[in-house]
Amino acid sequence: MARVLFKRGKKEFVKELNREITISKQRFYYVLNTEQDFITEEGSIDKKELKKKDGSVIKTNKNKEFTIFSADFIDNYKKIGRKAQIITPKDIGIIITETGINNKSKVVDAGTGSGALACYLAHICKEVTSYDIRDDAIDIAKKNKEFLNIKNLKIKKKDIFKGIDEKELDLIVLDMPNPWNAIKSCEKSLRIGGYLVIYVPTILQVSDFVNEIKKYDSFVYLKTIELIERKWKIDGRIARPNSEAIGHTGFLSFVRRI
Amino acid sequence: MARVLFKRGKKEFVKELNREITISKQRFYYVLNTEQDFITEEGSIDKKELKKKDGSVIKTNKNKEFTIFSADFIDNYKKIGRKAQIITPKDIGIIITETGINNKSKVVDAGTGSGALACYLAHICKEVTSYDIRDDAIDIAKKNKEFLNIKNLKIKKKDIFKGIDEKELDLIVLDMPNPWNAIKSCEKSLRIGGYLVIYVPTILQVSDFVNEIKKYDSFVYLKTIELIERKWKIDGRIARPNSEAIGHTGFLSFVRRI
Amino acid sequence: MARVLFKRGKKEFVKELNREITISKQRFYYVLNTEQDFITEEGSIDKKELKKKDGSVIKTNKNKEFTIFSADFIDNYKKIGRKAQIITPKDIGIIITETGINNKSKVVDAGTGSGALACYLAHICKEVTSYDIRDDAIDIAKKNKEFLNIKNLKIKKKDIFKGIDEKELDLIVLDMPNPWNAIKSCEKSLRIGGYLVIYVPTILQVSDFVNEIKKYDSFVYLKTIELIERKWKIDGRIARPNSEAIGHTGFLSFVRRI
Amino acid sequence: MARVLFKRGKKEFVKELNREITISKQRFYYVLNTEQDFITEEGSIDKKELKKKDGSVIKTNKNKEFTIFSADFIDNYKKIGRKAQIITPKDIGIIITETGINNKSKVVDAGTGSGALACYLAHICKEVTSYDIRDDAIDIAKKNKEFLNIKNLKIKKKDIFKGIDEKELDLIVLDMPNPWNAIKSCEKSLRIGGYLVIYVPTILQVSDFVNEIKKYDSFVYLKTIELIERKWKIDGRIARPNSEAIGHTGFLSFVRRI
Repeated sequence: MARVLFKRGKKEFVKELNREITISKQRFYYVLNTEQDFITEEGSIDKKELKKKDGSVIKTNKNKEFTIFSADFIDNYKKIGRKAQIITPKDIGIIITETGINNKSKVVDAGTGSGALACYLAHICKEVTSYDIRDDAIDIAKKNKEFLNIKNLKIKKKDIFKGIDEKELDLIVLDMPNPWNAIKSCEKSLRIGGYLVIYVPTILQVSDFVNEIKKYDSFVYLKTIELIERKWKIDGRIARPNSEAIGHTGFLSFVRRI
Repeated sequence: MARVLFKRGKKEFVKELNREITISKQRFYYVLNTEQDFITEEGSIDKKELKKKDGSVIKTNKNKEFTIFSADFIDNYKKIGRKAQIITPKDIGIIITETGINNKSKVVDAGTGSGALACYLAHICKEVTSYDIRDDAIDIAKKNKEFLNIKNLKIKKKDIFKGIDEKELDLIVLDMPNPWNAIKSCEKSLRIGGYLVIYVPTILQVSDFVNEIKKYDSFVYLKTIELIERKWKIDGRIARPNSEAIGHTGFLSFVRRI
Repeated sequence: MARVLFKRGKKEFVKELNREITISKQRFYYVLNTEQDFITEEGSIDKKELKKKDGSVIKTNKNKEFTIFSADFIDNYKKIGRKAQIITPKDIGIIITETGINNKSKVVDAGTGSGALACYLAHICKEVTSYDIRDDAIDIAKKNKEFLNIKNLKIKKKDIFKGIDEKELDLIVLDMPNPWNAIKSCEKSLRIGGYLVIYVPTILQVSDFVNEIKKYDSFVYLKTIELIERKWKIDGRIARPNSEAIGHTGFLSFVRRI
Repeated sequence: MARVLFKRGKKEFVKELNREITISKQRFYYVLNTEQDFITEEGSIDKKELKKKDGSVIKTNKNKEFTIFSADFIDNYKKIGRKAQIITPKDIGIIITETGINNKSKVVDAGTGSGALACYLAHICKEVTSYDIRDDAIDIAKKNKEFLNIKNLKIKKKDIFKGIDEKELDLIVLDMPNPWNAIKSCEKSLRIGGYLVIYVPTILQVSDFVNEIKKYDSFVYLKTIELIERKWKIDGRIARPNSEAIGHTGFLSFVRRI
């Protein structure tokens, strides 16, 4: 089982500058293999140390201290193969809280991509099935699923435009360039009251999807939103937004099956 | 069991204006009691109709059509007593996805407030315990818990500054004016690797909390963020952000127990 | 000449609540006519008082104190007839600073609308000409121009799609639903190196304009931006964004004539 | 006088990818010295060509085409020495439009820094005086003032906390870490109705300033805002915010002298 090492950062007060400067930043290290010594830039850690209990303080051969603990789902999740445009925690979060999915829910997602979203949903839901037509995407997704030891996720090589096998779904998430083509398949597979959510990068895709879904009596268009995440630097007397804001990820449109 | 009625909106093309105008907006109606007729501004619905199966189209006595379906968790959740500053779906969402909680997780939250957050977490997690010292808050929270038929939530009238009974928690969420006072209690109750998250409206509260938590070797300060949600109006050739953006809700600070 | 009255707000410390509460908010009053007494909700002010020098503290007949001073351009500008979708200070500001216009600049703007933008540009520039085809808009704009005592603004009832009389312009601003139709007129009237700026509420209008302007060798598309203004509440220990953020105004696209 | 060269970008349709790819991006080149040949990565341009009239298409010795035109204020302004935290066009813009300064206005700014703000204000206003105590800043500012050929800007090596020589000012802008120390000096130098604006990076600085200025009867605190600028990528069917949003610049607080 993977472990995580934490190295505390170090600041020093420099008289000439009359202020503290950061000597080294705090850092987390992900240790996948505890059967061999772990090398860091501050020395190596004996593999026996890597098995110590959570919260133990261990040292490298250069006497640098680390705290060790067991990797949890998020630690592992951050390690899976990341495609360029991976859907971020804030977006996954609001998909969950706008649709109320939980461990009783049955969900389909397409396209699979790296499987990141499918894996996260499987962590929350009862069953997830993910569709993609590209072999390379499916291969990566299967590896990630295995890496995260996920049991309730099925990955199918199938064109979702041709139909979804699963019925009475609570949620379908479409992360693809042309989701309007999948509306008919979704119509047949969502339970009444279930949700269809699309995630697209450009507003013209949103517009095309929304104008298309509004033609259906079997769907109600709810809303389109985007979430902007702003990180703040908080330290001593400093309290300001980071100079680099997180930019755009995607637009989320929510639709209900009625 | 509660039902939801959906009434489709109506647009009409007006020759003089050379465009469509909205006659009536689409609307959802929440029907708590299916043992009596339901009155809408477009006529009343016979109670027998309220029991029809999901997806049925039913009519009022004025012949207005509605679609009926069963209320799900989110439909019910939107109905619980809302305090002024209730934590919104986007914020609950990112608390979930930054900490990886799921149906194996044990969570504490304080103060209970209306219990909205505690109820939502109970929907996702294994066990939730919520602390508050105010009788009125606890009363409302218990009513809401009952209304949502939640079984895995304990509400305790207790001052969290005096200690948290639960141990080895995966997550503690503090939604209170002065969370820095609860750090010691949280220290003893979080599992190593577990998360402490605070939600506060002003940046000075963030600053005070962060400067305090940085003094602890048993905690690692991760980050502070705020999420800004922007709703878009998408209709025909219109694609623009709503004139009223969603304003500020609160800042979220994430800390890890090591 | 118009004057401005300022009434300071009042707070009182309430023992039972153990905090200050706001009895009355601070307020500015715009006094157009100094030849008659001015009535406020706290009494009336004798007209002789209205002529006192800037900074004088004067009283109503109920002994309420006000400070009086002369209205400046912004005080007067805030009073002009405001159409629904008036371009705001932040947007006018960046039009100025991205194009470098000043009191040597010759500018055209269309459609005139209420004339608010044209009047502001005339305050900064050497000459402004504003085009509109609607009589009601032109009437309002002329009244506003007169009210603000602006001498260097010409308002023309003319269809800008048919051509712009002025040549060698430094800047043309288009605030209209279909600016792409004016590109040819702008081409003939901008000096080489001059700027064309459009201000539109929806992203599809931006998209149509940009895709059209990119066909012209005589223009270089620079960028499209939107400015989001966030107001903060700062008071004692409170420092947080206002609950109501300013929503969307419009998108600004910048183009250069080469 | 400086010139600007514009090189159009180039796209090519690639059959294998079935789409256009960008071979080279469009670019502007700033030519300071027209007395010598200008070297680009696409060949060199004979100095005689550099004097051709605005709008001329000229070629490098490798036959690459450029359009040439005279640099305007903004072209030159973009070239001045940029300090790390220079105040951006959006922020300068709203300072102008919230205070109504124009070519009749007398303005003071401190600290001078690189002089960028002082130079921009001098471009708009009648007279600007800028204060700083650091020799290196003053040197850079003087060079920039000279480069931009600005005549109506005075740069003074003086501590603004000790007093401002100019009186009856329309606007004072403070861009410094501790602006609350300058309030007394500003009080004596602003005309009644004039504006004091501060620009600071952190919210604690805003808070300290606002809480201090609220103690003065001679000032009215108006508001604190921040402007967030979002750039959009608009191209063909793509319409989305850029992946990298412009992050935080600073907070602006506006105060009026009464």
